Amino acid sequence: MEKGRLEAFSDGVFAIAITLLVLELAVPGAESGENLAKLLGARWPSYFAYVVSFAIIGIMWVNHHALIHNIARVDRPLLFFNLLLLFFVAVLPFPTALLAEHLRSEGSHVAAAIYSGNMLGCAIGFQSLWRWIVHDQRLLHAHIDHRAARAGQGRFAIGLIVYAVTVGLAFVNAVATLAVHGAIAIYYVFDQLTVKERAES
Amino acid sequence: MEKGRLEAFSDGVFAIAITLLVLELAVPGAESGENLAKLLGARWPSYFAYVVSFAIIGIMWVNHHALIHNIARVDRPLLFFNLLLLFFVAVLPFPTALLAEHLRSEGSHVAAAIYSGNMLGCAIGFQSLWRWIVHDQRLLHAHIDHRAARAGQGRFAIGLIVYAVTVGLAFVNAVATLAVHGAIAIYYVFDQLTVKERAES
Amino acid sequence: MEKGRLEAFSDGVFAIAITLLVLELAVPGAESGENLAKLLGARWPSYFAYVVSFAIIGIMWVNHHALIHNIARVDRPLLFFNLLLLFFVAVLPFPTALLAEHLRSEGSHVAAAIYSGNMLGCAIGFQSLWRWIVHDQRLLHAHIDHRAARAGQGRFAIGLIVYAVTVGLAFVNAVATLAVHGAIAIYYVFDQLTVKERAES
Amino acid sequence: MEKGRLEAFSDGVFAIAITLLVLELAVPGAESGENLAKLLGARWPSYFAYVVSFAIIGIMWVNHHALIHNIARVDRPLLFFNLLLLFFVAVLPFPTALLAEHLRSEGSHVAAAIYSGNMLGCAIGFQSLWRWIVHDQRLLHAHIDHRAARAGQGRFAIGLIVYAVTVGLAFVNAVATLAVHGAIAIYYVFDQLTVKERAES
Repeated sequence: MEKGRLEAFSDGVFAIAITLLVLELAVPGAESGENLAKLLGARWPSYFAYVVSFAIIGIMWVNHHALIHNIARVDRPLLFFNLLLLFFVAVLPFPTALLAEHLRSEGSHVAAAIYSGNMLGCAIGFQSLWRWIVHDQRLLHAHIDHRAARAGQGRFAIGLIVYAVTVGLAFVNAVATLAVHGAIAIYYVFDQLTVKERAES
Repeated sequence: MEKGRLEAFSDGVFAIAITLLVLELAVPGAESGENLAKLLGARWPSYFAYVVSFAIIGIMWVNHHALIHNIARVDRPLLFFNLLLLFFVAVLPFPTALLAEHLRSEGSHVAAAIYSGNMLGCAIGFQSLWRWIVHDQRLLHAHIDHRAARAGQGRFAIGLIVYAVTVGLAFVNAVATLAVHGAIAIYYVFDQLTVKERAES
Repeated sequence: MEKGRLEAFSDGVFAIAITLLVLELAVPGAESGENLAKLLGARWPSYFAYVVSFAIIGIMWVNHHALIHNIARVDRPLLFFNLLLLFFVAVLPFPTALLAEHLRSEGSHVAAAIYSGNMLGCAIGFQSLWRWIVHDQRLLHAHIDHRAARAGQGRFAIGLIVYAVTVGLAFVNAVATLAVHGAIAIYYVFDQLTVKERAES
Repeated sequence: MEKGRLEAFSDGVFAIAITLLVLELAVPGAESGENLAKLLGARWPSYFAYVVSFAIIGIMWVNHHALIHNIARVDRPLLFFNLLLLFFVAVLPFPTALLAEHLRSEGSHVAAAIYSGNMLGCAIGFQSLWRWIVHDQRLLHAHIDHRAARAGQGRFAIGLIVYAVTVGLAFVNAVATLAVHGAIAIYYVFDQLTVKERAES
């Protein structure tokens, strides 16, 4: 039952963060008289950032789902490690809007670094949650192989390194950084998840 | 249990998207000194678009409810097809605001085409979800007739064609396009759903 | 299970609408250099409208809770009558902001009439939902006395008349109208609910 | 079951309030041409207030979780005491934005006093909820020691005094007030909760 509320609250934060992203898509005013298709086309960074952030939050939700599925019991530290992860999920609409606004200006490097830093924060959140879960056999369902679970941790750690690299990449090219985040999201869909499934079975 | 979280997350996104629509209804300032009834009356496109989008999200929620009801088990691809559908649901407040802002200006055709394109996206999302569910007997509840379920797919396909037509209609008349979307929503309430019910029984 | 999703979706819309109200509370800018306490004090209509609308949504949630508690089964028309009610709940932040903005200007009468009209819409939504539930014994739990339930309907009807009166009152005095809505909310807490409880037992 | 909807609605309000905080983080425009890192650095009060408010709502959610866990049954007054608490949770984004905007201007004292007053309101909400729960043995689970539960109340009362003191502190130094609220949040994580756990066992 406690686990039920952890899931309900987490699902709520994920669902709200993913839906709030739309509020950052500004509607060009009708008064300007300019061609609407052109006006919208000029705002492609907003749509690009929106799609990447939507995909990332969606995939993190699926991952969270898979992670919590392993848990039989919830203790208080777990609630706080979960809050740490939710912090970086809930704040994501801010770096998304920041990057969209500055993607083609001088501030693009700083904005992309903040965006990458936010992703690194999410990875740290997942890492802490996972570490806490596997450190205590009592939190896990009996059918979960403890050693396989620990092995999965290695792969999570790769995520930390990759995201740290994207922080550096931000200072080279912001558009490429956003594209890499989109690519990582796609990678997580196809690869990382199947590995975790193998670890679970 | 997995199905429970799919429903919770989906219900969250539907509930948030349908409620966020209200944020696009701008409140005219008191300073202008103009007659408030007149000021509000001039904004009828906002209220028209609000009501149509509210009805559409509400009906899609009912449809999603009916669709997921057939499912006994959730697999990973299903989660991602569901995310595809939720993408078009969550983004709907944007084309709604866009169409409301431009319904009486030159940009009305582009705005209506984007609105219709969003609906086409929703239809594609539902179609993929449905196809994935019926392609594998193990995902369905035992009492669901597999062939009847496949037959229902034909009707879903009609939705794809109708929405594609509304994209074209957008370039003829934007107000008519919005009205047609309202009419389709009403049609889905009365017809499509009873068919699906028959298919289920 | 179907009832579970009806509750989850409704709880979502109620929770979001009640929380979105806060976005209408504008923060005065620091640049003006004016006394902050004075600036905030001048905005009392916003806080007044916020508190009344928060109380109304909260109480409607409790009433919805009590109403759905009687139901054993959910059919499709019930989902749509529920959507009708949720429409008026979800849109409430708009008339709340409208009334707050215009409470001390000439537009106060129109704004208050729209606010009252929204409440009348909520009452109609509750009324339709209740009528649909009691019209079919199969929707109700076996332990609910059908006749007592029908009797409760008379009291709901009083709500319709009272809200219709507040629409008229709006054209006399907008502040008084808002105060009456606050008073009705308090009345619903103490009286109406105990009656329904009696009807249930 | 009734308890289920109380939890669902409360989880919804907590999740939405904690996620809406992000909307108050304004994105500096790209046109200014100024250094983005500098522009963002100048807005540290927004990030400071954001982090403190996020932590506070998160911890209140954990506390609410622990409190409701003790309950076996829900009655109507409990729903209204819960609404009182949710009022102060849902409104928190407003004093957060207010304090962020005025932290370095003359209005800082008033803004910090309102922020502290909001926290005092939360404490009063928790206090009333707790008092109502322990006043009636029938609301509590059989395994809860009634006297230990009453003892826990004393500690809650300390919260009331501390928050009242922060209202006074606001008129001395607003930044210190915000820092104290952050410290109280951390204290609640480590101390108060373990006490409650002892009381529960």
